[in-house]
Parts: sequence; structure tokens; C-alpha cells
Amino acid sequence: MTIPSGSGLQGPVGVVGLGLIGGSLGLDLRARGVEVRALVHRQATAERARERGLADVVESDPAVLAGCRLVVLALPLHRLLDPAPELLAALPAEAAITDVGSVKGPVLERWQPLHPRFVASHPMAGTAQAGVEAGVRDLFVDRPWVATPDAATEPEALAQVQALAEALGSRWLSCGAAEHDQAVALISHLPVLVSGALLLGADRGAVAGVAAGAQALPELVRALASSGFADTTRVGGGNPELGTLMARHNQAAVLAALAHYRQALEALEQQVRSNAWPELQAELERCQQLRPEFL
Amino acid sequence: MTIPSGSGLQGPVGVVGLGLIGGSLGLDLRARGVEVRALVHRQATAERARERGLADVVESDPAVLAGCRLVVLALPLHRLLDPAPELLAALPAEAAITDVGSVKGPVLERWQPLHPRFVASHPMAGTAQAGVEAGVRDLFVDRPWVATPDAATEPEALAQVQALAEALGSRWLSCGAAEHDQAVALISHLPVLVSGALLLGADRGAVAGVAAGAQALPELVRALASSGFADTTRVGGGNPELGTLMARHNQAAVLAALAHYRQALEALEQQVRSNAWPELQAELERCQQLRPEFL
Repeated sequence: MTIPSGSGLQGPVGVVGLGLIGGSLGLDLRARGVEVRALVHRQATAERARERGLADVVESDPAVLAGCRLVVLALPLHRLLDPAPELLAALPAEAAITDVGSVKGPVLERWQPLHPRFVASHPMAGTAQAGVEAGVRDLFVDRPWVATPDAATEPEALAQVQALAEALGSRWLSCGAAEHDQAVALISHLPVLVSGALLLGADRGAVAGVAAGAQALPELVRALASSGFADTTRVGGGNPELGTLMARHNQAAVLAALAHYRQALEALEQQVRSNAWPELQAELERCQQLRPEFL
Repeated sequence: MTIPSGSGLQGPVGVVGLGLIGGSLGLDLRARGVEVRALVHRQATAERARERGLADVVESDPAVLAGCRLVVLALPLHRLLDPAPELLAALPAEAAITDVGSVKGPVLERWQPLHPRFVASHPMAGTAQAGVEAGVRDLFVDRPWVATPDAATEPEALAQVQALAEALGSRWLSCGAAEHDQAVALISHLPVLVSGALLLGADRGAVAGVAAGAQALPELVRALASSGFADTTRVGGGNPELGTLMARHNQAAVLAALAHYRQALEALEQQVRSNAWPELQAELERCQQLRPEFL
């Protein structure tokens, strides 16, 4: 597939950071005949990125971005929210700039004053991998790519980012930054805490069992945990730095999501405690109906 | 593979119920040259079970169990705990009897007075399927099969059940019924409630968002939910009747597990609320370390 003219993807695309998202972007764009110019932090990363062919040009000097018509900031959230002055100075004034951060309110607030053509966006794709080895082809196919424009967002810059997302096979969505952050709190950040607490709670329960005389309990829970426990704890056992960044930069929405979750769990617990079995079964039937709506 | 003589599996094996577990037992035993005699509730089930070859003989008359040296009660928990008088009358006095229930304390208490050679056991294998179509070959391979004998359990009957489990490729484990029930509360029954509450909490949060002016939130959470949400909610979106039976018949251990879980989740929530980011990251690192211990 080549990029149709008029799609907004003519001219080189800049990618800042060649981790999972940046590296995957580079591979997909190059496969579509788009020139990719990448800026990375460390020389060792640059060398490995060149070996992997993640971009046409890879440098640790921000001047590499000169001439780009579109620049994607594929940086971790904490670096995105605290950009280096050299990076800011090197971003072409005429380029559309977008990011890939998983929280949008703080990013929009920080970046809109920094560049007139900034568009906040979030490709919702990932694997468990990170770093320069992580990038893969077709990561974005059939995944949502959410933009959160507001009244100050330039329509032509927004169209350039949409063209990028659609060229890579993403499903393009647009909503307010606050709505995005509430939604990802509920379906992405909350699950990390819910799932992590299951690991901590199971361990805590097993240790308490030993204190109560069930010496074998820690060994037993580890021997008996099966695919259901594996699935439910997968995101909780994931990248701790990422989980912390999400909670930190989406704090209010995550706390609101936790409050809704606690209410739901306490209702189930109350049904177990009060022998309300038909009511518990009705709630679990509601769960069974809800899940396909989300997937 | 054939059954070695002296393994306790000579003579026909009786299977009561031909759902996922009973049907899979029948297929595996027949493939090993063991005669299987099955008792089912309904005539339509008997016909379909014969077509599928789940047993050598399938009847709805309990007399089919005559002559069996080992009988496996592969019944749902509520039927196991309230057995039909005709079934009790038909169980050969000389046969070893075992069950496959996922809770062991109530089963041992109910069945030990009913049959002198009863052995409480729990093959921890499953799929999302149920009913006469669900049985598959090799369901038990490399899965734990837990027995919970006590001082009254007859050693020779226990050895017969162990021979069955090992012939089917299971990993044989033995522990007290109370320990078993605490362990499965933590790693099997708790995850159902934790995971179901995530579906209910996400829906609750989205509905609250609408009330606060975020009209698109219910649609947005459904559009953005990805593999992490899918994994974390899988067991919560499962069989509601089964989830209710587990909670009902393992009530005390499930409530204790919920209390440990709540403490773990509240600690994480407190860290988010109080901006304790290094502490939150340390807890998520602990989660990352814990998970491989369980899997």
C-alpha cells in the first residue's frame, strides 16, 4: 500500500523515540514508502535502531527533525510532559505535532502553548514489550487511535494525524480530552490496580493462612492457580513504571473509577455475606451480558 | 497407554454425569481400554452421549453402576450436595467413590457418612463449555488433581483415585479440605468476583459520566476496551450459576479472601490518593515479582 497524494503524509515524518510505539510507527511508515527521520536519546539506541531499520535516518541530534511535515512524539509520559528545550527548539514550526500518550488532559494543557499545530492523540495498541527491540509491523491495525482536539486545534493538523492513523490501519476516533481520560481510567488504568490487588490479596490471604495454622497455603495457592488467575492478573503483573505513570497523570479519573469499582465489589460482597444467592446470580448474569458489549 | 495391573483401575469405572468433566473422563478412560459405565439424568443426554462415545454404556437407570469398582460423581455442586436416594442406593458398597466438586469441606461432610469408601477430590481442569457436548480428550493432562483425605478416608480407596488421576496425566496433590477451600477461594473464586466487579464498575462509571455531562462515555468505554480489559474480565463474564455456587458453598473462605483483597486494593488506592508514587511503584513491582510464582 502506498500513501495517496493529498493524504497529508507527503514529506518526511519525524518520530521522537523508537520504543514500542515509535519503532512500530517507523517500520509501518517505511513499508508504505514514507521517509522516516527519528530522534533518539542515546547513541546505543540509535545504532540498534539503524540495524533494525526502524527509520531511514536515526540521530541523537534534534536537527534530524528539520524538514518534517509531521512529527510524532513517541515518548514516555513523564518525558512528554517535561520536554527538553533542545527538542522544542528543533520542532519545525510548520509541522503538525502529535503525541501517543495514554493520558490526554495534561498533555494537551502542556503542549498546546508550546506549538501552534499540536494535536493530542492516543493510538491504543501495545504489547508487553518495551524499548528499541519492541517495535513490530502492523501494531496499529484495527486498533483505536483516539484524537482529543479542542477549539484551539488546527483542523489541517488534525487531518494530517488522521491520515497517519488511517494509513496504518487504525480506527480513528475523536472525543474530548476529559472524556478520553475518564474512559481509559475505567477500561485501562483501573484494571491494572484491580488486577495487581488480586496478586497482593492472594499472597496476603495465603500468609494469613499460615499464621492461622494452614502451613501449606502459600505453596498450595501457587500450585493451584490456573488460567483464570493468569488472565485476571496479567495486567497487574505488567510494567510497574507505566502503571504508576498512568495513575499519577490521570489521578482524578483513576480515583473516581476506583470509587465506582469499590461500590460494585461491595455490592457483590454484601450479597455473599447475606446469602442473597438469587441476587448474586442476577449480578453475575449482568456481568455475562456486559462483557461482549466491551469486546 | 494401557492401565497397568495393580493400578486399581481394573473393572468398569462408573461416571455419574456426562458434562465437561464426566464426558472428558469417559473419553480418556475408554481411550485407555477401561470400560466406562455412565449414569445420566435425561434420556436425551443418554442418546447424545452414546453418539459421542462418551462411555461404553449410558443409562438413566442407576442400576448401570452395578459391578463398578470405582465411581466418579461428576455432578454440579448443588446436585452433589443433595444426592438422589436412588443414586445412593445404587452405589456399590465395595466401590471407591469420588467426586469432582470445586469445594471440598461441605462435600466431605455430606458424603463421608453416606459411603465408607468415599474420597473427596477435585480435578482442576476446565474450559468455558458445559453439557454433553463439552467433554474433550486430554482435559486433565498436566492439571492438578487435588484429594482432601482425612483420618476416616480408606487408604486403598484413595490409591484407586490417585491411579485414576495419574492415568489421565494429572498432577496428584493431597491436602486438608479446609486448606483446599481457602486456596481455591483465593485463586479461583475471588477472581470471579474481582473480575465481575470490573465489568459492573466500568459500566457504573460510564453511566455516572453521562449524568455529569460526558454523553459519549458509555460508547467510548466500549470502543476503547482492549485485550487488557478482555483478560481481566474473562472469568467475571463466565457462567453465573457456577460463580454463585462457588460463593455459596465456600462462603466463609470467599469472604475472608475478599477481606484480604479489599485491604490490598485500599492500600493501592491510598497511595494514588496521597501522591505516594514511589510507594505505588514498589507495590506494582511486588505484583510483577509475585505473578510468575503463581504461574
